[in-house]
Amino acid sequence: MLARDYETQVCSIARALEVIGERWSLLIVRSVMQGHRRFDALQADLGITRSVLTDRLRRLEGEGVLERRPYQTRPERFDYLLTEKGLALWPALNHLMQWGDRYYPEPDGPPVIVEHVGCGGGPDGHQLCDRCGAPLGPGVITTRSGRAAAASG
Amino acid sequence: MLARDYETQVCSIARALEVIGERWSLLIVRSVMQGHRRFDALQADLGITRSVLTDRLRRLEGEGVLERRPYQTRPERFDYLLTEKGLALWPALNHLMQWGDRYYPEPDGPPVIVEHVGCGGGPDGHQLCDRCGAPLGPGVITTRSGRAAAASG
Repeated sequence: MLARDYETQVCSIARALEVIGERWSLLIVRSVMQGHRRFDALQADLGITRSVLTDRLRRLEGEGVLERRPYQTRPERFDYLLTEKGLALWPALNHLMQWGDRYYPEPDGPPVIVEHVGCGGGPDGHQLCDRCGAPLGPGVITTRSGRAAAASG
Repeated sequence: MLARDYETQVCSIARALEVIGERWSLLIVRSVMQGHRRFDALQADLGITRSVLTDRLRRLEGEGVLERRPYQTRPERFDYLLTEKGLALWPALNHLMQWGDRYYPEPDGPPVIVEHVGCGGGPDGHQLCDRCGAPLGPGVITTRSGRAAAASG
């Protein structure tokens, strides 16, 4: 049963925030989208405690945003993968990234660069490729560190 | 000075969430976008305490997402308006709404309908008009209650 953080609100934005608005949840979705699929890799990428990560992964799995697939049985270990519902968060995430890039720019440039695979263009303001016009999303894009991330690494 | 909730993260999504990720903040931006500009109207729309609303409005004003304009001097009263930076959150908000509409549908239909003014189309998955193809955003769209909101009112 979904906790109703905003139960007075008849609003799909409120519904969405009840699922992904908890501290760290959206950044976990981002990290999985960027290819961190295992618990230890996610913990290292996010720098959060095991208990917070466990709690958020359970919640995201319970809501069908992530699914677990075993990759080892003794001891049991899992890959975390985004479901179709989780992948459908990409446009919102990418708009938040573009907003952060624009209004909180890093001195060395954007931390993450999104590229249209095989074309080299990037997302415009409508998540279409600014070079060839194709619709962008998971599966046709790749991300790489920009200069700010490289400089801090 | 911006509180760094995610200070280990070199990431524009994390930066964005530090500004609008606090409980209620994004719903306040939504309410202002839908035309609620005064403190009492916002409080009624959101159903939150005066102290939480005051705190969030100050933070959003401090970050340049909202600005206050006096509409009365004795006592002093303000309209809250979105800046260009605040209006630039529209695509992310609308994607979250579309995600909520899709994965948490209300039995009576979507709570809020977004319409392209003068055309009657609505946003497609790229925030372009699904009827005429024009780019959509604040200024060229209007929102109205869907059936679910009407039924609960």
